[in-house]
Amino acid sequence: MAITGVMRAGHAQLRVLDIQVSRKFYRDVIGLVETGEDAQGRVYFKAWDERDHNSIVLRQADSAGVDFVGYRVLDAASLDQFERDLNARGVATRRIPAGEMLETGERLRFTLPSGHEFELFAEKAHVGNGLGLKNPPPWGPDAEHGMAPVRFDHCLLYGPNVAAVKALFTEVLGFRLVERILGPVEAGEPEVGIFLSCSNKTHDIAFVEHPNPGKLHHVSFRLNSWERVQRASDIMGMNRVPIDMGPTRHGVTRGETIYAWDPSGNRFETFAGGYEPYPDWEPITWTFDEFGHGLDYPTGTLHESFLGVVS
Amino acid sequence: MAITGVMRAGHAQLRVLDIQVSRKFYRDVIGLVETGEDAQGRVYFKAWDERDHNSIVLRQADSAGVDFVGYRVLDAASLDQFERDLNARGVATRRIPAGEMLETGERLRFTLPSGHEFELFAEKAHVGNGLGLKNPPPWGPDAEHGMAPVRFDHCLLYGPNVAAVKALFTEVLGFRLVERILGPVEAGEPEVGIFLSCSNKTHDIAFVEHPNPGKLHHVSFRLNSWERVQRASDIMGMNRVPIDMGPTRHGVTRGETIYAWDPSGNRFETFAGGYEPYPDWEPITWTFDEFGHGLDYPTGTLHESFLGVVS
Amino acid sequence: MAITGVMRAGHAQLRVLDIQVSRKFYRDVIGLVETGEDAQGRVYFKAWDERDHNSIVLRQADSAGVDFVGYRVLDAASLDQFERDLNARGVATRRIPAGEMLETGERLRFTLPSGHEFELFAEKAHVGNGLGLKNPPPWGPDAEHGMAPVRFDHCLLYGPNVAAVKALFTEVLGFRLVERILGPVEAGEPEVGIFLSCSNKTHDIAFVEHPNPGKLHHVSFRLNSWERVQRASDIMGMNRVPIDMGPTRHGVTRGETIYAWDPSGNRFETFAGGYEPYPDWEPITWTFDEFGHGLDYPTGTLHESFLGVVS
Amino acid sequence: MAITGVMRAGHAQLRVLDIQVSRKFYRDVIGLVETGEDAQGRVYFKAWDERDHNSIVLRQADSAGVDFVGYRVLDAASLDQFERDLNARGVATRRIPAGEMLETGERLRFTLPSGHEFELFAEKAHVGNGLGLKNPPPWGPDAEHGMAPVRFDHCLLYGPNVAAVKALFTEVLGFRLVERILGPVEAGEPEVGIFLSCSNKTHDIAFVEHPNPGKLHHVSFRLNSWERVQRASDIMGMNRVPIDMGPTRHGVTRGETIYAWDPSGNRFETFAGGYEPYPDWEPITWTFDEFGHGLDYPTGTLHESFLGVVS
Repeated sequence: MAITGVMRAGHAQLRVLDIQVSRKFYRDVIGLVETGEDAQGRVYFKAWDERDHNSIVLRQADSAGVDFVGYRVLDAASLDQFERDLNARGVATRRIPAGEMLETGERLRFTLPSGHEFELFAEKAHVGNGLGLKNPPPWGPDAEHGMAPVRFDHCLLYGPNVAAVKALFTEVLGFRLVERILGPVEAGEPEVGIFLSCSNKTHDIAFVEHPNPGKLHHVSFRLNSWERVQRASDIMGMNRVPIDMGPTRHGVTRGETIYAWDPSGNRFETFAGGYEPYPDWEPITWTFDEFGHGLDYPTGTLHESFLGVVS
Repeated sequence: MAITGVMRAGHAQLRVLDIQVSRKFYRDVIGLVETGEDAQGRVYFKAWDERDHNSIVLRQADSAGVDFVGYRVLDAASLDQFERDLNARGVATRRIPAGEMLETGERLRFTLPSGHEFELFAEKAHVGNGLGLKNPPPWGPDAEHGMAPVRFDHCLLYGPNVAAVKALFTEVLGFRLVERILGPVEAGEPEVGIFLSCSNKTHDIAFVEHPNPGKLHHVSFRLNSWERVQRASDIMGMNRVPIDMGPTRHGVTRGETIYAWDPSGNRFETFAGGYEPYPDWEPITWTFDEFGHGLDYPTGTLHESFLGVVS
Repeated sequence: MAITGVMRAGHAQLRVLDIQVSRKFYRDVIGLVETGEDAQGRVYFKAWDERDHNSIVLRQADSAGVDFVGYRVLDAASLDQFERDLNARGVATRRIPAGEMLETGERLRFTLPSGHEFELFAEKAHVGNGLGLKNPPPWGPDAEHGMAPVRFDHCLLYGPNVAAVKALFTEVLGFRLVERILGPVEAGEPEVGIFLSCSNKTHDIAFVEHPNPGKLHHVSFRLNSWERVQRASDIMGMNRVPIDMGPTRHGVTRGETIYAWDPSGNRFETFAGGYEPYPDWEPITWTFDEFGHGLDYPTGTLHESFLGVVS
Repeated sequence: MAITGVMRAGHAQLRVLDIQVSRKFYRDVIGLVETGEDAQGRVYFKAWDERDHNSIVLRQADSAGVDFVGYRVLDAASLDQFERDLNARGVATRRIPAGEMLETGERLRFTLPSGHEFELFAEKAHVGNGLGLKNPPPWGPDAEHGMAPVRFDHCLLYGPNVAAVKALFTEVLGFRLVERILGPVEAGEPEVGIFLSCSNKTHDIAFVEHPNPGKLHHVSFRLNSWERVQRASDIMGMNRVPIDMGPTRHGVTRGETIYAWDPSGNRFETFAGGYEPYPDWEPITWTFDEFGHGLDYPTGTLHESFLGVVS
């Protein structure tokens, strides 16, 4: 079977300072589809072209950040196998019962060496993209409400022990390294940034070395073209959304991107472009002295806020 | 491991009527990179953003068509396993020795129920995309020579026994059905067209029921945007390349497409767009009465040449 | 003064078979903004980025076609001068009083040698584009309702005596020839199609020789990009709008275009692209044998319906 | 006649520090077509889709900046009339003989209240865009050499006395105000930036109030799409061209833009987008407090270098 194990970024639970302000922002500005609210008051969203019931979950809290991210695996057998493999490696796991999140099955939770709570799950209800499975049009009204990304694509997490994280993802979870950023020569060029894929995408998850554990750099939303990136940037301007950088192109992954902050200070990306890597491809390396172009290919600028601000 | 087994369309050997005319066409009009010529006089090409040494091979012959298509598998162990699985299912296979094609390892050859010669292989030399693996720019001069597709993406083959082909690809080769076209209600709505993926692409191979075995409908080349599809259409006009249909959008797979013929009458596609399906997604179905929009979404036209002409 | 005399296509009154069906089509499918209905039951529309109160007017009638087209001139003095110049040339004119059309001043009406009723006018109320004149955003919700063209751009009229029409437009009305299509060599290569500009656009009006007087080939609506042309083509597919040709590129004017029919059989165009010609530029000529590429640059197809069907 | 008087930005003579370095930059990075070198060692370029022999002229000098800009008028009679009108207003003019610039007729030179040397001319040889005037393709190889703008579009000049400049351009030269930027409320909201058009373009020339006379903010080159703006930004990254701002969208004129510096420190713009204004339209006003969005619509950033650095 060609795709097995971990399939994709499934959900991220974000902490927001005011649930109603954020709900409006994620629904009407980013343009996600609101799909539910649970007894705890968490609000659930999906991107329009996803089929799963939810991918972004907001929880009101006193500080911004990410509670956990969850990746969907192929089936229950895969979940069991990952549990055994993780435990065999000495990673403690626990099961969160089905239904704790709306329309979502049992989740396998563990803590990454970077301090992030990470989950795998095999079941989340399919609600479809609103176009049906029979003679569907290519898009519908949801595709033009707000920035209207097609999917929650990946996230970039900041924390310590990137080398250990890489080992876990590549040796246990079946990811592979697609691109990497090296630290300074004088520090021996350690891998300070890693872009990991479990698919044909340039990244399904990425990590950057950072002293503080469990930090969120951004959750990323996929758009279908550079013109849609422009449209997103216009919508950011119309809504006075604070922009971190972009629109521009990354050297790393070739992504066409904008970074901005939600009302609580969680960074998000809207992006298009990239390429389709395969398991037999060697990773691409960005050296420290050229990382400005890796980050912002046209200008080569090392945006300070991009490097330092996390939630 | 997340991607295993068959990874991607690796090569297609096309029969052309005049090798020099075709060489010039594939190199300067389609804009592939010529990478070699072997002792038999076959000419090898790769698309610029592929890393493998070759993907399209031209052989001079008296009639157009496709000799065989080959898909790259993850490793030698996968190749051995597929051989066992195919033989267990009663499919006869043979090994073609490494080196029979330039820079290509041993190939496992067998005949599909549709009459096509099909191959799996695990080795083909990486020559890269010309940008290097260290701090690469997003593209280079090869990306603007001719239509300059990024890769050989998939092929659509016409032949009998589509149901048996589907069984073989989904039960043995690890592909899954992403979209399908049904025949007329009065015929019981058989699956007359199937779009199969072994990745996150909408199709890595497709088949349409046709009485004559072993026919080529088209080989398909990937472009990165609808504006690049337009650029390709301009280049077709400049070079008086006969166009079958497009530029338009398919309903099926949402692809943004043009079909045209090479100088020998082999159809090729240049396309962008689509979406990223996953193994847990149910396939999309196109009914016979709506297939006009599946083929040409804006107009709903059932282009006769598209349906009938093969090589 | 740099722009004087005739400024732009101002309005076209179209005959439609069912005013309510057409109103819905022009408003929700083409995506014009409805601005009024007069005592005669005529319905008025503007494109979103126009500032004038109206540009497309629908009148219920027993047959499709165009009642008249009107072009806005700089001021009342220009209108008077054109009246004198037309009369001096033997063209009879009459004044239609202000208010006969909603929010529109006095119109100077005359009949072209091609049999079309043509008008000039100097006054039509500015209602703006909905974004205001102070710190406006680049676009708003109207820009995504239906195909949402930015303006009524030009029209192509079919009728006899194209040579006389050209003389009138270039010698009296201040237009200039930007491109032209020649008839067959054996017929002496008469100008059978002329594209006339009174601005920096490739055409503000165009005429093609045709035996029947007063015919409408199409009214044309401007879009801002090839991706918006694709979006329009998707909307046509979603609404089963019959398409005549496209999406494709014209050789003539380089326009990126789709032609389709409204529910009454009036053809309209949605287009982007082109270039900006100037009065000192010599016109471009399309010969009869190459007109296929002038019409449909990629394919070179002489679409029969395009050439023959008018309303 | 619909377009009279001043037609377009015709030429700008730029001072560069090293003529050979700059020649290579304007030819191979910006992608202009080199058309000649004169006895003084000045090097001449045109943008590919211009028909005039030259538009950008480089002169080696000790400091960067602009020697003069010249605008093409309709004909010799217009030139004479402007001379009379300028002199009547007390503006001293002088004639620079035909041939002083390659392939260029007599020029009428005068000094603007902002301290810039400004010229009008009626003759410059047409050399065409390389595609011919008979059945031309929509573009050719020149359209993909470097950033390959279609034309020299406009320039933005910094200097004192913007109010007097505006009066001269609108009262004598036939330009009109399309957009304007106001100074602070406490300063009485003077017009500190004016965007003037003599065509259907949003600006053919622009001025910003600045204490130093005769300063160049940028010369601007037109691209045909936002995707071409991205391509230009990639080429800037590949060639390590220092970027001032962008890619982004202006609120002012809606332009899709990048600003960067040539090797001598002259700023240039590559841009697409905008809209088509007419003489009857009221100007758009940007207030001081919202000018950040006028400059960089998505982010609202008041880029300091953009405001302060001139050559």
